[in-house]
Amino acid sequence: MDLGKVVLTVGDWSPGGWIEHLERYVSREDVIFSDGVTPPEPDICAQVKYAVAWKTPDGFFSHFPNLEAVLSTGAGVDHLARRPDLAPGVAIIRVIDPDLTGRVTAWTVMNVIAHHRQALAYLDAQRDAQWRPLPQSSAPDVRVGLLGYGELGQSAAKVLGLLGYDLAGWARTPKPDADIAVFAGWDDLDAFLARTDILVCLLPLTDATRGILNSDLFGKLAQDGITGGPFVINGGRGGHQIESDLLEALTNGTLKGASIDVFEEEPLPSDNPLWRAPNILITPHTAGMSAPEALLGNMVQNLIAFASGETLDNIVDREAGY
Amino acid sequence: MDLGKVVLTVGDWSPGGWIEHLERYVSREDVIFSDGVTPPEPDICAQVKYAVAWKTPDGFFSHFPNLEAVLSTGAGVDHLARRPDLAPGVAIIRVIDPDLTGRVTAWTVMNVIAHHRQALAYLDAQRDAQWRPLPQSSAPDVRVGLLGYGELGQSAAKVLGLLGYDLAGWARTPKPDADIAVFAGWDDLDAFLARTDILVCLLPLTDATRGILNSDLFGKLAQDGITGGPFVINGGRGGHQIESDLLEALTNGTLKGASIDVFEEEPLPSDNPLWRAPNILITPHTAGMSAPEALLGNMVQNLIAFASGETLDNIVDREAGY
Repeated sequence: MDLGKVVLTVGDWSPGGWIEHLERYVSREDVIFSDGVTPPEPDICAQVKYAVAWKTPDGFFSHFPNLEAVLSTGAGVDHLARRPDLAPGVAIIRVIDPDLTGRVTAWTVMNVIAHHRQALAYLDAQRDAQWRPLPQSSAPDVRVGLLGYGELGQSAAKVLGLLGYDLAGWARTPKPDADIAVFAGWDDLDAFLARTDILVCLLPLTDATRGILNSDLFGKLAQDGITGGPFVINGGRGGHQIESDLLEALTNGTLKGASIDVFEEEPLPSDNPLWRAPNILITPHTAGMSAPEALLGNMVQNLIAFASGETLDNIVDREAGY
Repeated sequence: MDLGKVVLTVGDWSPGGWIEHLERYVSREDVIFSDGVTPPEPDICAQVKYAVAWKTPDGFFSHFPNLEAVLSTGAGVDHLARRPDLAPGVAIIRVIDPDLTGRVTAWTVMNVIAHHRQALAYLDAQRDAQWRPLPQSSAPDVRVGLLGYGELGQSAAKVLGLLGYDLAGWARTPKPDADIAVFAGWDDLDAFLARTDILVCLLPLTDATRGILNSDLFGKLAQDGITGGPFVINGGRGGHQIESDLLEALTNGTLKGASIDVFEEEPLPSDNPLWRAPNILITPHTAGMSAPEALLGNMVQNLIAFASGETLDNIVDREAGY
């Protein structure tokens, strides 16, 4: 299967590893590296059928008149789904990568346990060189809510379930085959929140989910959790959270803690007060870093399947936005 | 089944919850609460056949001439196995409690992920309000070694395996039915250490394992781990570690980090330099706190089975010490 030319634009990532790995699958002269801003020469652009892309400025894709499909290098496709420079006929392929899923799962599990087991209080005690054991609840008494029950939410649920947490999920559409209770649709969101001590956001970012982590939602989480929650963990997108609301909720105690990996503006500026909000754990968008070695094999398989006319179940529904 | 009188001594724990829960199974007048130092009246002592005990001073049990069995309230039985005041005929019953196991598992999993995912470096970056993403390895490239592959080690292995870590165990005796590679016996210890980036100690404390976490062992751990280990996690007993060696190894970089829940002296004194050792995470013996509600049902079932003459598989081998 000759894929023809593939344009590769990976944002501020170092291109070296990506090019090296992509060359295992596509001949060197057909890998067109771009900074994602300046397009290649027009005759090259005309030959490009596929793009592997991270965030690129609007308009970039309009230089490729024969583009057939775009693959995102991350788990989210919000940076691609609504772009006017991607014609409706261009397929957006969401890469489901077990390595990436596993990374997000580990980050999620670590943060759920950290809040349940009061890691921040123990860090404070350690800083004070004080032996301060605290009353501790058992995992089955801690209600974890997975806001988003797709690939990432389901993977986290498997591990958290094995650890004994009391789990529920929320998704836009019903999941009749789920092993846990899954609340479905906007009408069921409040009931889901009311039974949740630790909320984990692993949603796709769409027009409907933008800003969902706001004061109104924080106030609807369970206030009677025996571990002293509620807590919010966001491994989704910065666009899911209203950061002024998050800061206020942590400051006034509506939220007893948070773990945030994604931000409205990244890198999070040094003078942003979130860095020093009470009981927050911040990671710099590293919950689910993609690894070229694990990701590219998957991507090229996806491209080959797509180019062969196979039906893929990971084509983005551009109306739904994910 | 009438168990007769049960003496209950739970160290510095509040007795209230224990008495309340034990009364569900044993009539009020047969629950003899003791501070573990002062024995009850001699005629009461003579009627006691069973004891539920945490650490009590040597000699305490010699006041109970008709004692048949002792149950430990924690996962470890090192505080009971070698006591001269427990006649050889007194059975020591190790309580295998899924709740306690689950707690130790969660603590272990959190700490493995924390070191793998460089949580301490991100805490530092957060303190500096700096966005500092770091290169990150994938779980299958991280070799976790479970030193001790009993109830606790096997439970941790299930979750860590689901998270994709490259696992091996070490045990005193071979485990032919294990799902992971288990190195067995002292001759195989070095090979086990040489393939281990993150070492998790969940051993029983015996004469043979006392002081096992020492400079010699630290120096034998893998020095080529791609996450920059080795790391040591001790959820066993303080007696497993030589704390001066641990401090030295963290200071000189032989160990890149550690999570320690147990100490030679507890509470760990405020002036102990371990509190401020580089890259250490300290918890105050809270990895596996026992919960009366979950534990006592188990214990009483064990006592009833024992009193009925059933064969229990959780009677301590007093020669082996666990």
